[in-house]
Amino acid sequence: MDIAALRSANPDHWNKAAAIRALTLDAIHAANSGHSGMPMGMADVATVLFEKHMKFDASAPLWADRDRFILSAGHGSMLLYSLLYLVGDAQITLDQVKNFRQKGALTAGHPENFLADAIETTTGPLGQGIANSVGFAMAEEIQRARYGKKIVDHNTYVIAGDGCLMEGVSQEAIGLAGRHELGKLIVLWDNNNITIDGTVELSDRTDQVMRFKASGWHVQEIDGHNPDEIDAALTAAKKSNKPSMIACKTHIALGHAAQDTSKGHGALTDDAQMAEAKALYGWTSGPFEVPADIKSAWEAIGSRGASEHAAWKERFAAISGNKQAEFDRAYALEAPKKLAATIKAFKKQVTESAPKVATRKSSEMTLQVVNPIMQETVGGSADLTGSNNTKTGDMGVFDTDNREGRYIYWGIREHGMASAMNGMVLHGGIRPYGGTFMCFTDYARPAMRLAALSKIPTVFVMTHDSIGLGEDGPTHQPVEHLAISRATPNTYVFRPADTVETAESWEVALTSKTTPSVLALSRQNLPTVRLEHKTKNLSAMGGYVLADADGKRQAILMASGSEVEIALAARDLLQAEGIGTRVVSMPCMELFAEQDASYRKRVLPGGPVRVAVEAGVRMGWDQWLLGERGREAKADFVGMDSFGASAPAGELYEHFGITAQATAAKVKALLG
Amino acid sequence: MDIAALRSANPDHWNKAAAIRALTLDAIHAANSGHSGMPMGMADVATVLFEKHMKFDASAPLWADRDRFILSAGHGSMLLYSLLYLVGDAQITLDQVKNFRQKGALTAGHPENFLADAIETTTGPLGQGIANSVGFAMAEEIQRARYGKKIVDHNTYVIAGDGCLMEGVSQEAIGLAGRHELGKLIVLWDNNNITIDGTVELSDRTDQVMRFKASGWHVQEIDGHNPDEIDAALTAAKKSNKPSMIACKTHIALGHAAQDTSKGHGALTDDAQMAEAKALYGWTSGPFEVPADIKSAWEAIGSRGASEHAAWKERFAAISGNKQAEFDRAYALEAPKKLAATIKAFKKQVTESAPKVATRKSSEMTLQVVNPIMQETVGGSADLTGSNNTKTGDMGVFDTDNREGRYIYWGIREHGMASAMNGMVLHGGIRPYGGTFMCFTDYARPAMRLAALSKIPTVFVMTHDSIGLGEDGPTHQPVEHLAISRATPNTYVFRPADTVETAESWEVALTSKTTPSVLALSRQNLPTVRLEHKTKNLSAMGGYVLADADGKRQAILMASGSEVEIALAARDLLQAEGIGTRVVSMPCMELFAEQDASYRKRVLPGGPVRVAVEAGVRMGWDQWLLGERGREAKADFVGMDSFGASAPAGELYEHFGITAQATAAKVKALLG
Repeated sequence: MDIAALRSANPDHWNKAAAIRALTLDAIHAANSGHSGMPMGMADVATVLFEKHMKFDASAPLWADRDRFILSAGHGSMLLYSLLYLVGDAQITLDQVKNFRQKGALTAGHPENFLADAIETTTGPLGQGIANSVGFAMAEEIQRARYGKKIVDHNTYVIAGDGCLMEGVSQEAIGLAGRHELGKLIVLWDNNNITIDGTVELSDRTDQVMRFKASGWHVQEIDGHNPDEIDAALTAAKKSNKPSMIACKTHIALGHAAQDTSKGHGALTDDAQMAEAKALYGWTSGPFEVPADIKSAWEAIGSRGASEHAAWKERFAAISGNKQAEFDRAYALEAPKKLAATIKAFKKQVTESAPKVATRKSSEMTLQVVNPIMQETVGGSADLTGSNNTKTGDMGVFDTDNREGRYIYWGIREHGMASAMNGMVLHGGIRPYGGTFMCFTDYARPAMRLAALSKIPTVFVMTHDSIGLGEDGPTHQPVEHLAISRATPNTYVFRPADTVETAESWEVALTSKTTPSVLALSRQNLPTVRLEHKTKNLSAMGGYVLADADGKRQAILMASGSEVEIALAARDLLQAEGIGTRVVSMPCMELFAEQDASYRKRVLPGGPVRVAVEAGVRMGWDQWLLGERGREAKADFVGMDSFGASAPAGELYEHFGITAQATAAKVKALLG
Repeated sequence: MDIAALRSANPDHWNKAAAIRALTLDAIHAANSGHSGMPMGMADVATVLFEKHMKFDASAPLWADRDRFILSAGHGSMLLYSLLYLVGDAQITLDQVKNFRQKGALTAGHPENFLADAIETTTGPLGQGIANSVGFAMAEEIQRARYGKKIVDHNTYVIAGDGCLMEGVSQEAIGLAGRHELGKLIVLWDNNNITIDGTVELSDRTDQVMRFKASGWHVQEIDGHNPDEIDAALTAAKKSNKPSMIACKTHIALGHAAQDTSKGHGALTDDAQMAEAKALYGWTSGPFEVPADIKSAWEAIGSRGASEHAAWKERFAAISGNKQAEFDRAYALEAPKKLAATIKAFKKQVTESAPKVATRKSSEMTLQVVNPIMQETVGGSADLTGSNNTKTGDMGVFDTDNREGRYIYWGIREHGMASAMNGMVLHGGIRPYGGTFMCFTDYARPAMRLAALSKIPTVFVMTHDSIGLGEDGPTHQPVEHLAISRATPNTYVFRPADTVETAESWEVALTSKTTPSVLALSRQNLPTVRLEHKTKNLSAMGGYVLADADGKRQAILMASGSEVEIALAARDLLQAEGIGTRVVSMPCMELFAEQDASYRKRVLPGGPVRVAVEAGVRMGWDQWLLGERGREAKADFVGMDSFGASAPAGELYEHFGITAQATAAKVKALLG
């Protein structure tokens, strides 16, 4: 590249972009780690985007109607941190930039949404940002349809790299965005032809332009270092009614000795090469120094949106107080006041009617009372609507001609669904839930982990949660998936035993602000086990005494979900032999672990033998079976230690020995 | 559809296809579950494929040079079982078809490769078959290059549905196949426009023809019920040097009342409707009955390849005895005899040189001695070659002009890599291993689970296995992933502490025939802890005494991988205070669990307090900390109970309290 020509063609632009490049070099040099190439390659695109197109007010990063900027290529985090520092973000200060990647800094290796208000989403695992962005754009469409474009009318901009486009989840995202004509979604592809292993050609020859067009996108190809082309393409993209992809031909690590090489992707820390690059840029300031005129030009960009923001505030003030309150409540992830009473009334009703239904049906019954009073919920399923029971009659279907629809047919795209749901929460105003089979949490894992890490309350409705799925066989029968979800920090894994517990689990999930929930629900019918109405949400305690021992307490049975019925039947067998047996229902281990030690000890006192029953692997149960911190207990487990099999569900329970008889026998063996 | 016209146009073809349709209806009726629509829709395509194109010998389903048939749309398993019964497969008998989806039957809900020789791969989780097929086709290319096309020259045929193509992993597969010009891969897309939730239009408008073309595929569009078009398209596809996709326009559940509806996707069991469909087909036989002439026509198809098979045997007999033995050994997944001695010699050498290297480097050192003596290994990485240390100098790179290359640049496609590796193993002759960061096991999960379920020894090289990854931060730092892998049945999770243990782990992984391995390897340098040469593979015991107590044994420290060093340092601290401390290295919990109880008790005797140290979540450790089956132990854990953070690795270990000091302190607290 002829850097001199670029500089002279548009010095004002050049210097602003050079500030990003210089800060990137300095921060990565100081940290001795990081990814230099992307920020240096995409600095021109980002500069034009922020200068001329992004609607934002740097002094108010949470302004609800701001344009969203999503750095899907999260390793290029210094692009984002540079931009935020330059425009005058109050949190991403120069000190933060200097402490890039250090302990306690807001400038983590990859952007983390919960560290600073202006960071829209947590990226780094490739493809997540572009998949999140579909949720951002859907949320915007839904909110715009509800509140009108005077209140909601913004774009979602994404910078994605070759890695994002190679990850499979990108296809799920592209297909969804094309199908739903998400015209306000604009993806800027950093087309630098370089991956870590070498040129893209090593592993891919896909014509990305044709690929996006195949899914109905508006596509443009530009020189990613030409500010006029960037500007014109963004203008055209905003006009298009289709989602837009702008293929920005760039040079990774522009102007550095490592330009256009895979080395340029990583940490460029060589002093001499850094000096040479800066000299080429015409950058004479010291490390972390930005000349005052350039800084103030950037700060002017940061405050450019202030008047627009003020005008928006006026428009917002003009809508009804009720609408304002509803808008703010949903953005704050506050449940409506009615929710608690609604759940209580529902619990009372089902305690009395004691339905024998699958908990996936219990979930639908709960949603039927919740969705009408909680307009922010948006449901969906990855092509298993009738099996996941996620759709209630009042929702309407989100579509190009019904942007207010609250139900999304995600297609066979578990990963894209989960990632887009995360994007909806992060956008604000929407509380999404989506379903698939529990076994296919596997497909959604990367996004489910990011929900937990991002501290957002996405709800994953995972039905067919055990061998109870039956004839579809082991490919579709989860055995390790409860353990997998429970192993993930900051995740509530609910496995309710009946309709009452299902409603209680939903109540926790729908009031959570910082923790995602997995609802593991049965395919098969289960009796109501909570036959006495309690206004208190017992599931919120995680585990509780469902049936106590008659006589001397010799055994404690613990179970979750569909196996609570089995534990109760085992208790009957044991009590009939005079063995006093308590049954503890454990719908959510994480919440039980959060209770104080005295509560846990009341539920699980020392002394009695303990047997847990769950149609999954034992992993995770030992902490309750074997006592806390080494306290002794005689204990055993009834569950799975292999994959399942293909047969009717009842036969499988017998085959794998998950029965009341087997449970009672283990208790008796432990008692000697 | 005008069924009468189809029947009269080509009655011979029609009747053969009708046999598939009738058996499908009967089997699903008997099971009262299953998926009728796909077999009924794709019966014509499958019939022409088997009758006129598939190279196979039904009497020898394991013939190495057979064409592979992969049912990616695995829910349509009755298509496969019908075909196998009809052509005279010895295992899939009429009784098996009658017992579809019943306990113990080989005709599981979804096809399982280990149940019958003729089932090439386990499918059902959508997209896996098409991604497997890339590995099948790559393995064929590699083997053909090695042995010549007289010995290896076959096609890989795939039937994929809309669901397979919507799953993101399909894009990874399509990109790989296009890049590598896998001309012998032929995908038949069941273009029926129906998903479970409704028409494809509900969730997708992607132009699949354009999408495949964008990745360099040869694409044709045909009427999937016209045998001549099917035949011609297959002929053209076989001639193409590119991978081929044939878009077969079909009617799901052809001829049934549920034709062309999402109801047709599922179990069609209504008696009257079934009778109507059979009448339309002109099918007058009773349930599970196939007229003798039709059955014998199918059996002729099954034996059509016998002469070709015999000719192949002659050609195979003509190659050198060494080549034959090598070919057979690799297909049998037998390690070369030299492997044991090679590993022993390497262990001796590294015990003496005691290198301080990251175990990812130890892995590379091991591969440097293994790859030259084990030609069946094929390495690769999902764009992290230099970080995963998976490439050794002798391998060559697999490419269009180097089909003998043994290293694959998979691109940023962890899922596609894992699934294709499974396909390579299932094809035979290849023992693949592939790398990414441990954290991105998340992306590969669906395929890693299927490796375990399929009982195949795929090797997953997962480096950067903890917060020791450092500044890239929590998005890239695994904390729950060891637990996730360990929760999965039939999976060896190795976390070696040094180069000796790494070599031992590789030895187990490379001699395994039915269990996949995860090698969790450190980014950071680790000292050699095995300083005394033992010819015995101690890691194969899963856990063993690395350093025993001096004096009275008061404490047992357990650790894996990078934390063994910390446990040893804690032991030094404790011994200095007179506290006799044993250190148990636990490189593979699953293998330790496989040892007999007396060995486990010798390693972990009752009495001493126990502390485990691992830079991951506690889940999984309690079984060793708290004793087996309720035996008491005073115990504690040093590790992670949250996500990580972004900072240099050493600081993170201090920050999260994973240190020798913290470990020693916990021991002392337990001792009181």
